Amino acid sequence: MSNLTSAIKETSAEVRAELDRLLPVPNTPERRVVEAMRYSVLAGGKCLRPFLVLQCAQLFGVEKDRALRVAVALEMVHCYSLIHDDLPAMDNDDMRRGQPTCHKQYDEATAILAGDGLLTRAFGVIAADDCLFEPAVRCQLIAELSKAAGMNGMIGGQMLDILAENEDDMDMPGIIRLQQMKTGRLFSFACEAGAIMGKASYEERQVLKDYARDIGLAFQIADDILDVEGDADSMGKAVRKDLDAHKATFISLLGLEKAKEQADALSYQAVASLECFDEKADYLRDLARFIVERRS
Amino acid sequence: MSNLTSAIKETSAEVRAELDRLLPVPNTPERRVVEAMRYSVLAGGKCLRPFLVLQCAQLFGVEKDRALRVAVALEMVHCYSLIHDDLPAMDNDDMRRGQPTCHKQYDEATAILAGDGLLTRAFGVIAADDCLFEPAVRCQLIAELSKAAGMNGMIGGQMLDILAENEDDMDMPGIIRLQQMKTGRLFSFACEAGAIMGKASYEERQVLKDYARDIGLAFQIADDILDVEGDADSMGKAVRKDLDAHKATFISLLGLEKAKEQADALSYQAVASLECFDEKADYLRDLARFIVERRS
Repeated sequence: MSNLTSAIKETSAEVRAELDRLLPVPNTPERRVVEAMRYSVLAGGKCLRPFLVLQCAQLFGVEKDRALRVAVALEMVHCYSLIHDDLPAMDNDDMRRGQPTCHKQYDEATAILAGDGLLTRAFGVIAADDCLFEPAVRCQLIAELSKAAGMNGMIGGQMLDILAENEDDMDMPGIIRLQQMKTGRLFSFACEAGAIMGKASYEERQVLKDYARDIGLAFQIADDILDVEGDADSMGKAVRKDLDAHKATFISLLGLEKAKEQADALSYQAVASLECFDEKADYLRDLARFIVERRS
Repeated sequence: MSNLTSAIKETSAEVRAELDRLLPVPNTPERRVVEAMRYSVLAGGKCLRPFLVLQCAQLFGVEKDRALRVAVALEMVHCYSLIHDDLPAMDNDDMRRGQPTCHKQYDEATAILAGDGLLTRAFGVIAADDCLFEPAVRCQLIAELSKAAGMNGMIGGQMLDILAENEDDMDMPGIIRLQQMKTGRLFSFACEAGAIMGKASYEERQVLKDYARDIGLAFQIADDILDVEGDADSMGKAVRKDLDAHKATFISLLGLEKAKEQADALSYQAVASLECFDEKADYLRDLARFIVERRS
């Protein structure tokens, strides 16, 4: 497992270097919004989504430097969603990744614009000529990212999450659907992007989508468990918020033990679905375990 | 001029029909965010940006049905920016296009998500295979739209606008730069998109960019004039806000008469730059005059 964590750290450093390059600070007053974008996106997240992009891409022989561009665009989209979700009108969070949230560090207006800026930049990064895939591949990546992050994906999931605060009759199918939209769709895109870049077969693409669906859900259950068992310091954000808000979670519906069993089962199922890949997929196998065993 | 207004109305109807088709309401609870997107984008704006896209595209023989897709994507981006700019943390506006702003009609969280949803959808609409331009053209459109709407364009301009509220030493170069970023860049993209779709020459593209820069600025000066001379009913939004906030505008810097002269001069300059085009550009010529003579 220590190989995996150092591989993730390596990816994280590469992602940061690329983000730094793609978000230069202008020497004019509007630099404030660029600084806020950089503040959030360079804060040192786990970079799991970029890692998935790179790992899935290398299964099909895609060069890392080329795949990195798409990985970074996805991290921008993920970060924009965190900035907007943290806003007072949404989840109203003060801490994220161990530092004040964007609107706390800057202000609400700047945070809204910083999120908008990251989302806008992400699509431009994939579309640009120096993203070295052929235009048809770039278009396919953008079209899929737009679906995954959009009203029938991540944004729809966040809408469901906000609506769920006002109703306590969420059941398992309901919460699974919510989480698959809110979190799962970007995990799926990460894996699918690797397959698209590598011109994988339909079957290989399906396998990676299955894998992503399972680890995405396992990740969310693990998040709910950490929200109960973890501490704010190591999580870098507030914990037990859902519990205090009497919000339906996998824990409230299943109980702690059953939730852990479920996360484990999904993780093993994810590993099993990678059968058709050789040792090139070992990091993906390790990651499926890491996601349920992590402490932050 | 009456031909122009009916041509704009026709475009507006076509844009609405296409938006209706591209934003279907799902039969699930997250429909709320899609309804909010539709509420704002179908509210009946002037559709000047889509009109510019279609008019510039037809100069180069691009079929209207194909150009319409890109025109609609641009309208989505424009509407997302209005939704976010109207938020309490930004300009805090209650009325827009004669109806309550999105966050007034729904709530802030839904409005933030609705804006995000429109921006995300816009890029997907251009990238999709049923956007019938070849992939290289679609990528170029997305890359340019991302630049025009991004941190060095529209978003940077809105950041400047917010910062300007706290300082009263804005001068003419400062306000021109702000408005060219905030409003001008999307006008420019509208015209450039027509040229990109039509594979126009470098010179033709420059001419259209010059035209767009001039009418974009003229549009903004006319907006400032209407803010002083217009009434809330015909404008569909609050007026005299800038005046009450002692915010620098073209009027406060130039005075009303000089501002009118300036808008006129820009409008005639825009018409003059279209010299190389035949009568196919007549609506563009009329539009340059319409923009400074409009009453709402």
